[in-house]
Amino acid sequence: MPTSHTLDELARRFGLQLRGDGNRRITGIATLAHADATQLAFLSNRKYVAQLATTRAGAVILHPSHVEACPVDALIAADPYVAYAKIAGVFVPPPAATPGIHPSAVVEAGAHIGAGACIGAGCVVAASAVIGERAVLGPHCIIGAECTVGADAHLVARVTLVTRVTLGQRVLVHPGAVIGSDGFGLAFEADHWVKIPQLGGVRIGDDCEIGANTTIDRGALDDTVLEEDVRLDNLVQIAHNVHVGAHTAMAGCAAVAGSAVIGRYCQIGGNAGVLGHLEVADRVTITAKSLVTHSIRTSGEYSSGTPLQENRGWRKSAARFKHLDDFARRLAALEKDKHHE
Amino acid sequence: MPTSHTLDELARRFGLQLRGDGNRRITGIATLAHADATQLAFLSNRKYVAQLATTRAGAVILHPSHVEACPVDALIAADPYVAYAKIAGVFVPPPAATPGIHPSAVVEAGAHIGAGACIGAGCVVAASAVIGERAVLGPHCIIGAECTVGADAHLVARVTLVTRVTLGQRVLVHPGAVIGSDGFGLAFEADHWVKIPQLGGVRIGDDCEIGANTTIDRGALDDTVLEEDVRLDNLVQIAHNVHVGAHTAMAGCAAVAGSAVIGRYCQIGGNAGVLGHLEVADRVTITAKSLVTHSIRTSGEYSSGTPLQENRGWRKSAARFKHLDDFARRLAALEKDKHHE
Amino acid sequence: MPTSHTLDELARRFGLQLRGDGNRRITGIATLAHADATQLAFLSNRKYVAQLATTRAGAVILHPSHVEACPVDALIAADPYVAYAKIAGVFVPPPAATPGIHPSAVVEAGAHIGAGACIGAGCVVAASAVIGERAVLGPHCIIGAECTVGADAHLVARVTLVTRVTLGQRVLVHPGAVIGSDGFGLAFEADHWVKIPQLGGVRIGDDCEIGANTTIDRGALDDTVLEEDVRLDNLVQIAHNVHVGAHTAMAGCAAVAGSAVIGRYCQIGGNAGVLGHLEVADRVTITAKSLVTHSIRTSGEYSSGTPLQENRGWRKSAARFKHLDDFARRLAALEKDKHHE
Repeated sequence: MPTSHTLDELARRFGLQLRGDGNRRITGIATLAHADATQLAFLSNRKYVAQLATTRAGAVILHPSHVEACPVDALIAADPYVAYAKIAGVFVPPPAATPGIHPSAVVEAGAHIGAGACIGAGCVVAASAVIGERAVLGPHCIIGAECTVGADAHLVARVTLVTRVTLGQRVLVHPGAVIGSDGFGLAFEADHWVKIPQLGGVRIGDDCEIGANTTIDRGALDDTVLEEDVRLDNLVQIAHNVHVGAHTAMAGCAAVAGSAVIGRYCQIGGNAGVLGHLEVADRVTITAKSLVTHSIRTSGEYSSGTPLQENRGWRKSAARFKHLDDFARRLAALEKDKHHE
Repeated sequence: MPTSHTLDELARRFGLQLRGDGNRRITGIATLAHADATQLAFLSNRKYVAQLATTRAGAVILHPSHVEACPVDALIAADPYVAYAKIAGVFVPPPAATPGIHPSAVVEAGAHIGAGACIGAGCVVAASAVIGERAVLGPHCIIGAECTVGADAHLVARVTLVTRVTLGQRVLVHPGAVIGSDGFGLAFEADHWVKIPQLGGVRIGDDCEIGANTTIDRGALDDTVLEEDVRLDNLVQIAHNVHVGAHTAMAGCAAVAGSAVIGRYCQIGGNAGVLGHLEVADRVTITAKSLVTHSIRTSGEYSSGTPLQENRGWRKSAARFKHLDDFARRLAALEKDKHHE
Repeated sequence: MPTSHTLDELARRFGLQLRGDGNRRITGIATLAHADATQLAFLSNRKYVAQLATTRAGAVILHPSHVEACPVDALIAADPYVAYAKIAGVFVPPPAATPGIHPSAVVEAGAHIGAGACIGAGCVVAASAVIGERAVLGPHCIIGAECTVGADAHLVARVTLVTRVTLGQRVLVHPGAVIGSDGFGLAFEADHWVKIPQLGGVRIGDDCEIGANTTIDRGALDDTVLEEDVRLDNLVQIAHNVHVGAHTAMAGCAAVAGSAVIGRYCQIGGNAGVLGHLEVADRVTITAKSLVTHSIRTSGEYSSGTPLQENRGWRKSAARFKHLDDFARRLAALEKDKHHE
């Protein structure tokens, strides 16, 4: 049987104002379009206002300005999206992890396993590793030498911490992520590459989240650092010695090259890139697929690229792009002629 | 000893016209340039017509228009590329999987394993998982809670289905793919992020193929969906609540942001991107590295970006790009002057 | 206790000139800013010259031109970056791998394991696989059918070689890499895709390095090839039948489409792409995020894309980009009028 809560309970627990039947029981959350009478919906994006009139939800989380238009019960929130985020957590079943070490796991002698920690099937934990209290390692996680996992961290499955990685408390890492692999350091000598040993580590602050198949390299000499509450989506690449400020979020396939320093509260769009050794100020937004080619000293929104066009028209624009410098000169020449007339 | 087939057998089995020795035995497929007398080659790309004259293949799969120029035996096909695709399948050894559960696999009590299924070394299967008949799970696959693998599906190795993932029949998933990880959902409250629980799942239709290290997140409330025969290359990112229509193909490193709806029979080029909440019509082609920044209502080919240039010339074009608005105004001013003369 | 070496030892071993106390003991390497009196720093990037005056390092590796300005002992090198790369190797602890097969590994009967090789926890090795002498397979590596790992190769952890993959000697592969998965080959028949079996393999030359979560597909008929000393960063995608020349390096998230041929000594920037069936000459540099859309016959540096702008200005430029062809015609018309006056 699913968990259920009354509207009264939810309103009190999350500090929301209730309009309607406080005894109504709610068993889950769904969209305005799909929720039934036992479910809670929410309205935070104006795009969906039209769906409010016809919703069959038991109740809706919404802003005071939409209460009048709501045909069912309502939980009224200053920020309905935040309220939804918090209430949804009530309906997530706790992870099924049982404290202890699965018999198929390989934990080397010397490893420190905190009280209440769960080491899943097939995990491999090095002798010098430290696993915090109540941390959950899902199946097939590999915790390498000199790695520390913070209390209440959750490595969902198949996460690899290679060497000298420290995860803070409550860090959440999704499957396939690789943290602490060698930075990409090479010196060119005459006719071949010489590998530069990567002697640093990685430090990841409390409450960070790392997406599936994301890679974070360890530093060459100093550490690669993510401050607290940094949120990385899937397939993100963080090169060695990058420093990411607290509360910064990066969408899928974003990439940051070596030694770049990203500020706090930044938002890096999907597949955006930051070149190496640059600095990006606090509260900078980079739109999707843009490339940061110089340091950014002022908060704001930055972009590069060209808009999507039907291919035939785009080919013409693209061909002309190569001649922009010539255009500029010809335009200036015409203006000069004009001026001299 | 390799499998061998006569040209007669192949012609009959695949409905092709034969010109030449029906008793010739073929043991494999190779390129026009490298095939020997026991091998079959094919000609589908005009670029390789010149190689036909000198091929030493036993026979060539080709279009009727090239028969005259073929110096060896021929299997004549309206679409030689499709004929090659099908005939090549004859020479692929069946997977060496033996039905049953490898002793090193961890299958929780309660998991349903279909008849003839193969659970490889080191696999971990949750109690609530269902594995279809004759499905093959290569080594180190992890099948999480409430996940279902369809009949005859093939998870090559090290595939992770996290939570609430349903794979259709004959789905093929390559190593490192992560399906059903948390969508990237965050609400910003005052000075920090609040995680939005991801309560939906992922549904993947029959005959889909998912590339190596590709990631597909589960939905926030509703499911992320791939209809049948969707083909994803390696390192593709599909965000939560995306819907991909049947027969759509995406090349390596393509990425689709949350809640985007992609039509049927689309082709998304390598490293192309689609922003969130957009709609893309059926039969749309997006060229490599383009970014879809608005919904596309009409089938056709779409692009963004600039052409490759030698760096020195490109720097000049790029510098001028910043002044395009100024150019446009100055050009209009000159035209106005002209008009007033 | 950490390894320590005198400056005299280091100078002699690496052929460097010493200025200062040859008996000074060095226990590690650090940056100019952070090194203490027992550590060696280096100066190779002009950007850090200012830090030389205040360094507290025991000694500094530097170019002859900086010796005068160095307040501490010095190891003088024609190329301080190469010298640093080599000396740093002295301070890396050797991998803790013990020769032999971990009891949790699954090695099929028939597999050949070379003398001194180490097969880590949870590894799965197919019957037809060959592991070279002294090769180290970290935890959870999967070595599939007809795969060969060269002598002294190091697969750090969780590396998958799927089918028909040959790694040369001393190849280093980071966690999550997938080598030898199916190329993305499809033929479209009427209303659905037909998969093209991938019958080739992958050959990787001596001294190559493959980054974390990088994917390299096997060829359709012939092999995908990386010549010796190719260096790939994380999350790189190499499609089927690509050929990469010796000593070429690719930064994170670069991608090369099918059958492209890349020359020797190329440098492919982060998230750059190369379209299929193209040829790129030797010693070509592609800057980050550029897309190679035509073959490159001449060595040099190539780019595409637009520069980063503040979003408001960028929107204006981007809107005008669509009208470049119109601008060009209007500019030409004005010039023609001018000429006719």
